[in-house]
Amino acid sequence: MDSLEVGERRLTIDRATESDVPELVALLADDVLGAGREVSELEPYLAAFRDIDSDPHQYLAAVRDVDGSLVGTMQLTLIPGLARGGAKRLQIEAVRLASSVRGTGLGTALFAWAHDYGRQHGASLAQLTSDKTRVDALRFYEQLGYQASHEGFKRHLC
Amino acid sequence: MDSLEVGERRLTIDRATESDVPELVALLADDVLGAGREVSELEPYLAAFRDIDSDPHQYLAAVRDVDGSLVGTMQLTLIPGLARGGAKRLQIEAVRLASSVRGTGLGTALFAWAHDYGRQHGASLAQLTSDKTRVDALRFYEQLGYQASHEGFKRHLC
Repeated sequence: MDSLEVGERRLTIDRATESDVPELVALLADDVLGAGREVSELEPYLAAFRDIDSDPHQYLAAVRDVDGSLVGTMQLTLIPGLARGGAKRLQIEAVRLASSVRGTGLGTALFAWAHDYGRQHGASLAQLTSDKTRVDALRFYEQLGYQASHEGFKRHLC
Repeated sequence: MDSLEVGERRLTIDRATESDVPELVALLADDVLGAGREVSELEPYLAAFRDIDSDPHQYLAAVRDVDGSLVGTMQLTLIPGLARGGAKRLQIEAVRLASSVRGTGLGTALFAWAHDYGRQHGASLAQLTSDKTRVDALRFYEQLGYQASHEGFKRHLC
């Protein structure tokens, strides 16, 4: 378990456990885009959690306030690759902060922690995509030193 | 090993092996962006290859012509996740086709194969990013049904 100091607040980061899944899903659904994309049954999320948890290249982070409540999450994936001199990538997905902690500096602290995690695991490049309608998030990532050099394409396989 | 029929051409797709690494690196470097990003020593690529090859969620594809020459590559990563109802993602990286096979329909056939691979492994969403300067690639992905809904951010961790 790691800790984050944000102003006078002290938060913890740890790998999520199966018992965190309901809270994590609630956080994903409490979002302008997530609200229309998440489902009410828990079982698909539990199955997905087990897939994540059994893959050593995934880190699903649970960020907790001092009272133990879940206030943030992100999923880190380490992707080895040949391109760019054999660069390992840290991919960041599914970033969500509870509305109660937005604007407190937690996002910045969480990304600094994630970048350290990547470096410790040999990653030289961090990458993420953000929906073009998330205007505040796009600005946040640019402030963190990210460059919007790429188009992010998605396609359903069903 | 799978095969692809492209017009009168018959190509094969298989997992790359360590002996393919020099040809794969040459393919990555034979590219307007890759030319400035790849290095001359082979060792970093061999180390990266071993990381890829030891991770069961990676598939580094080697596409070969009937004479055995390497004419294409892409790297597939299966990423489990909680978001979107516990959707598993097929991430596609490091797509390269030799200049000798561009415009033949091989790219389209290769992506159809990749999407089938994703479906067979439970993925419901395919995702990739493409540098905004690769105008032909951006059009190609839109023709394949991809939507450029996201900004693709990158940041060096060094």
